[in-house]
Amino acid sequence: MKKSVVLLSGGLDSAVTAAIAVGKSRCTFVHVNYGQRTEARELRAFNGIARRYGTRSLVAGISHFKKIGGSALTDKSIEVPKGRLKRRGIPVTYVPFRNAHLLSVAVSVAETIGAGEVYIGAVEEDGSGYPDCREAFFKAFEKAVNLGVKKKKIKIKTPLIHKRKAAIVRLGVRLNAPLHLTWSCYKDSGRACGKCDSCLLRLRGFKEAGIEDPIPYRREDDVS
Amino acid sequence: MKKSVVLLSGGLDSAVTAAIAVGKSRCTFVHVNYGQRTEARELRAFNGIARRYGTRSLVAGISHFKKIGGSALTDKSIEVPKGRLKRRGIPVTYVPFRNAHLLSVAVSVAETIGAGEVYIGAVEEDGSGYPDCREAFFKAFEKAVNLGVKKKKIKIKTPLIHKRKAAIVRLGVRLNAPLHLTWSCYKDSGRACGKCDSCLLRLRGFKEAGIEDPIPYRREDDVS
Repeated sequence: MKKSVVLLSGGLDSAVTAAIAVGKSRCTFVHVNYGQRTEARELRAFNGIARRYGTRSLVAGISHFKKIGGSALTDKSIEVPKGRLKRRGIPVTYVPFRNAHLLSVAVSVAETIGAGEVYIGAVEEDGSGYPDCREAFFKAFEKAVNLGVKKKKIKIKTPLIHKRKAAIVRLGVRLNAPLHLTWSCYKDSGRACGKCDSCLLRLRGFKEAGIEDPIPYRREDDVS
Repeated sequence: MKKSVVLLSGGLDSAVTAAIAVGKSRCTFVHVNYGQRTEARELRAFNGIARRYGTRSLVAGISHFKKIGGSALTDKSIEVPKGRLKRRGIPVTYVPFRNAHLLSVAVSVAETIGAGEVYIGAVEEDGSGYPDCREAFFKAFEKAVNLGVKKKKIKIKTPLIHKRKAAIVRLGVRLNAPLHLTWSCYKDSGRACGKCDSCLLRLRGFKEAGIEDPIPYRREDDVS
């Protein structure tokens, strides 16, 4: 069976991507701690999903995004805004060029273990609106990969790139992905806030799919 | 004056690249600790050069190359071989896809501070023989950058890419680059070993340029 590397944040999209990948290849799951607010919570989601699938896994750590700043996800002086599903421009939660860092880690792992595919659960139209979530970026990055590594056949696989969230939720349920173990909230680690961009996109996806989201959300009367 | 980001390992090539960049732009020097054997020594070289130029600087840290393994530079169970200036294949000191990680850090910094150029001191023909030191890789990576960031004008500058080491040494001397502060040895941190690939390339460059290398080398009778 061919080998692959799957970037798994522990969110909905990456968990469904992992469910796709485990059906087609022998996976190594890779998670990156990059100083994001919900780092510990995401790592817990990652570990739960990796245990569930019994895959090999590797956790990487990069310390510089906190120093670089410029994003509400890594700089606590910038508040995570309440989300708006119709937005203009690039949200303040954008972490500059983050996906290149994640892909670089995954490609280094793939090259070392001899895997021919790197999976990433990026979503273009119905996603975060980040420039490094566009298909054109991944295609260009794949070209750079195949000029920069020894073994020249590593594909960047983005199976969800043009899907809507509701379709991702339905696909996850069909593939029996452990959606109850996932975490998407940008802000909180106990109950999801239900209000940030990431929560809003997720909740709309479940709603449109007619499926109940299995993770806990903060109630209005919760003390934050 | 325009802004740039300079990747500076603290070696000969990156120091000469820095000397070029400081003459043309307002620089931020970026160094990456990635678990290489001579990490502390390289950082000392970086700090010395950054102080000399009085630039802003940022030190990034990535922890995963040690876990990923597969390179004599980051895996102490693999010995750094004595160098051979005429080699075949890719040396065991190759760190898988390393330059993509370094460039990603520099691009994230550039995007955040609004710099339009990222300098890297890679050398193709007369260099290490690593696949991620080829001009074609940097051109492809630049395309990916400009599809993955908000502000779409970041150039990857490789001013030494087609130079021979002797020309780099002469250029460094002409630009008054602090060559005495640089460190190239893959293996040691006190006196350079003089025998690894990196030392051999450096020594040959100085010899061909007719200039004495100002850093200390291990003598045959030194105890290692």
